[in-house]
Amino acid sequence: MCAFEGLSKEQLIERKQQVQSAYDQYKSQGLKLDMSRGKPCSEQLDLSADLFKDTNNLFSADGTDCRNYGLLDGIREAKALFAEVFGLSEDELFIGGNSSLNLMYDLVSKAFIHGLNGFEKPWCKLDKVKFLCPAPGYDRHFAITELFGVEMIIIPMTKEGPDMDKVEELVAQDESIKGIWCVPKYSNPTGITYSDTVVKRLAFMKTKAPDFRIIWDNAYAFHHLYDTPDTLLDIFSECRKAGNPDRVYMFSSTSKVTFSGAGLAIMASSKENIAHIKKQIAIQTIGHDKINMLLHVRFLKNAQNLEQHMKKHAQILRPKFEAVTEILEKNLKGKGIASWNKPNGGYFISLDVLEGCAKRTVQLAKEAGVTLTPAGATFPYGKDPQDSNIRIAPTYPPMDELKKAIEILTLCVELAALEKVLA
Amino acid sequence: MCAFEGLSKEQLIERKQQVQSAYDQYKSQGLKLDMSRGKPCSEQLDLSADLFKDTNNLFSADGTDCRNYGLLDGIREAKALFAEVFGLSEDELFIGGNSSLNLMYDLVSKAFIHGLNGFEKPWCKLDKVKFLCPAPGYDRHFAITELFGVEMIIIPMTKEGPDMDKVEELVAQDESIKGIWCVPKYSNPTGITYSDTVVKRLAFMKTKAPDFRIIWDNAYAFHHLYDTPDTLLDIFSECRKAGNPDRVYMFSSTSKVTFSGAGLAIMASSKENIAHIKKQIAIQTIGHDKINMLLHVRFLKNAQNLEQHMKKHAQILRPKFEAVTEILEKNLKGKGIASWNKPNGGYFISLDVLEGCAKRTVQLAKEAGVTLTPAGATFPYGKDPQDSNIRIAPTYPPMDELKKAIEILTLCVELAALEKVLA
Repeated sequence: MCAFEGLSKEQLIERKQQVQSAYDQYKSQGLKLDMSRGKPCSEQLDLSADLFKDTNNLFSADGTDCRNYGLLDGIREAKALFAEVFGLSEDELFIGGNSSLNLMYDLVSKAFIHGLNGFEKPWCKLDKVKFLCPAPGYDRHFAITELFGVEMIIIPMTKEGPDMDKVEELVAQDESIKGIWCVPKYSNPTGITYSDTVVKRLAFMKTKAPDFRIIWDNAYAFHHLYDTPDTLLDIFSECRKAGNPDRVYMFSSTSKVTFSGAGLAIMASSKENIAHIKKQIAIQTIGHDKINMLLHVRFLKNAQNLEQHMKKHAQILRPKFEAVTEILEKNLKGKGIASWNKPNGGYFISLDVLEGCAKRTVQLAKEAGVTLTPAGATFPYGKDPQDSNIRIAPTYPPMDELKKAIEILTLCVELAALEKVLA
Repeated sequence: MCAFEGLSKEQLIERKQQVQSAYDQYKSQGLKLDMSRGKPCSEQLDLSADLFKDTNNLFSADGTDCRNYGLLDGIREAKALFAEVFGLSEDELFIGGNSSLNLMYDLVSKAFIHGLNGFEKPWCKLDKVKFLCPAPGYDRHFAITELFGVEMIIIPMTKEGPDMDKVEELVAQDESIKGIWCVPKYSNPTGITYSDTVVKRLAFMKTKAPDFRIIWDNAYAFHHLYDTPDTLLDIFSECRKAGNPDRVYMFSSTSKVTFSGAGLAIMASSKENIAHIKKQIAIQTIGHDKINMLLHVRFLKNAQNLEQHMKKHAQILRPKFEAVTEILEKNLKGKGIASWNKPNGGYFISLDVLEGCAKRTVQLAKEAGVTLTPAGATFPYGKDPQDSNIRIAPTYPPMDELKKAIEILTLCVELAALEKVLA
């Protein structure tokens, strides 16, 4: 990017005055707009109102009383539903509680304390554990590995997924690199879906660590915005072909399908991995909420019906995403101070501003009443080495608030850029 | 106990033939009776059918949309309910998912990996960690500490709770003793409630380890069988008086109030402990199922209503407990081969058979189609040093099955005892 190409210093100063004045006008309005997290909006949550329609009979198809204890890995029909959706077998699945984040935390925790299937020893016994972190990425992933004292290595994100040349080079030579965080579909926040080549290379690559694991957070598996969705290669079958059947743990949830606070989380992996971790989980809990599983399956029914349900979400979200990109184009295009993606699905738009300007932009927005995800949050340790990435979460605010917030954001982007070039 | 006092060898042989013949008759019936776990029965679960009655409005009193993300420690009214029930303030409470066991596992896990409030370092950095395990006790507690490699020390249970002379002696001299598992009310399985003196001594005792912690599993807090319930001294106020405000983490749940598979779990501790662990939990999850919290509060309403609800449970359970003790009395009293308790609440009857006979008794029962909790399960490492304790769980089976199972059990107790004295 070449910022404000063709503008003289005088023109830049004049432009800064204009932008500042427009910004000040918004600031004086005392707005309170929250764009910080990728939460569904009310209308989306209303789509699942019928989930509680039939609660008279709480027995599952095989006669299990879902009100009582039992069934560590979930009820049969919930496993059947997700087996169909993801093309897995039921013994490759574990149905959890309301939080796939919690399942991922637990996986890392177990990898550290007790070890997972195929580990020689738990990671806590090692001097050093490193993780590859494609970034910008999901802040809550990085928070988990940070908590466990993992050294996080940034991997640049390309349009096809993580930079695989870098990934392959690192994992081949460093035995302490034990894993990689991936959001392979409609990636958080860049919106890209990993290409077939990237998925194959992740499955086939040689790793110095025999216990290298991929945490495959398929959070947006069904979260398309358009009728021509991205497709993601099945990493499990690639891993089997590659002779690395135990490499991947996949996670997903219905948090953005039904209710974000009260959905179902799932974990999928090889039969051997699931059988192994089930023994560990058996010490931890007697099982997760089976009533919620039953109500979910009755409501979502099957893969086809789930797809139809997700189209209703898309109808609500598409105009919001398009409103954001329209305002970005209208206000920022051609100025050489910002770039962004137009995702085919997922929950975010990733905005890259002039290097060194993300923090300042977010601060300006904050002062004008627009709360964004903190700048840097999309990088390990909350530190964006370029200080340029901002995550936009368009889903939650009502349309009028969203548009106003993005208008303000674009002013902040330009103001921060002008401050920089005039400094 | 003096077994079969006054009987000659001939009389014992004759008696053995009689018992064996009665046992064989049952055995030939091919029965399948499961008495292994403390699960509520269908009629108890039916008591909470109205929990799902009103699902139209899923907003909490303060306007929180319980369908969406947020509120790490639970909705306000759920905290208010349990604050009332346990005489706590809301900032001493954390509302979890469906499993208090999972909260306890997480506590131990965090104590090991990251450390809890007031720890100098996490327990995983120590060469040795020991726990006191009043036994007979809850097998799932011991399984957690076993998984984390904790050395477990058996503390005998008295009629007032753990043998406090032994507890005080050990904790005063051994810094590696970091905790104790307690089920203070209607203890699993002995049914006793800790006396005021025991609670005070636990709160006031000097521990060599500054990070000694009590895991206070108040699982049966409201689970009375009679109108004159046991009372348990509030350990939190005793700990504050003693200057040990951070010593106790209490757990409880509605698993045996509403639905065992889909209730609410709670953790309570000092404000400082809760504030500290909330920061750790924030990395793990965005929060637990708030819809279920809301529905629970609407259904349970307040402490008084909860008490009324628990009386309905007692009406179902009392006859079952009494049937068990009646059969035990009828068939075993005065023989010097068994003793048992008549609990005022909780979920279990604890049966002590002749030393060295518990395993054999459970095996005999199994062969006759009656599945009991494995002998030894109530002790650390599954090893009962006397091989004498058997846990009876009378709640789940229908009355006729329960009676038949206990008739068979008493035959097995006598047969095992006769085998022993005649060996």
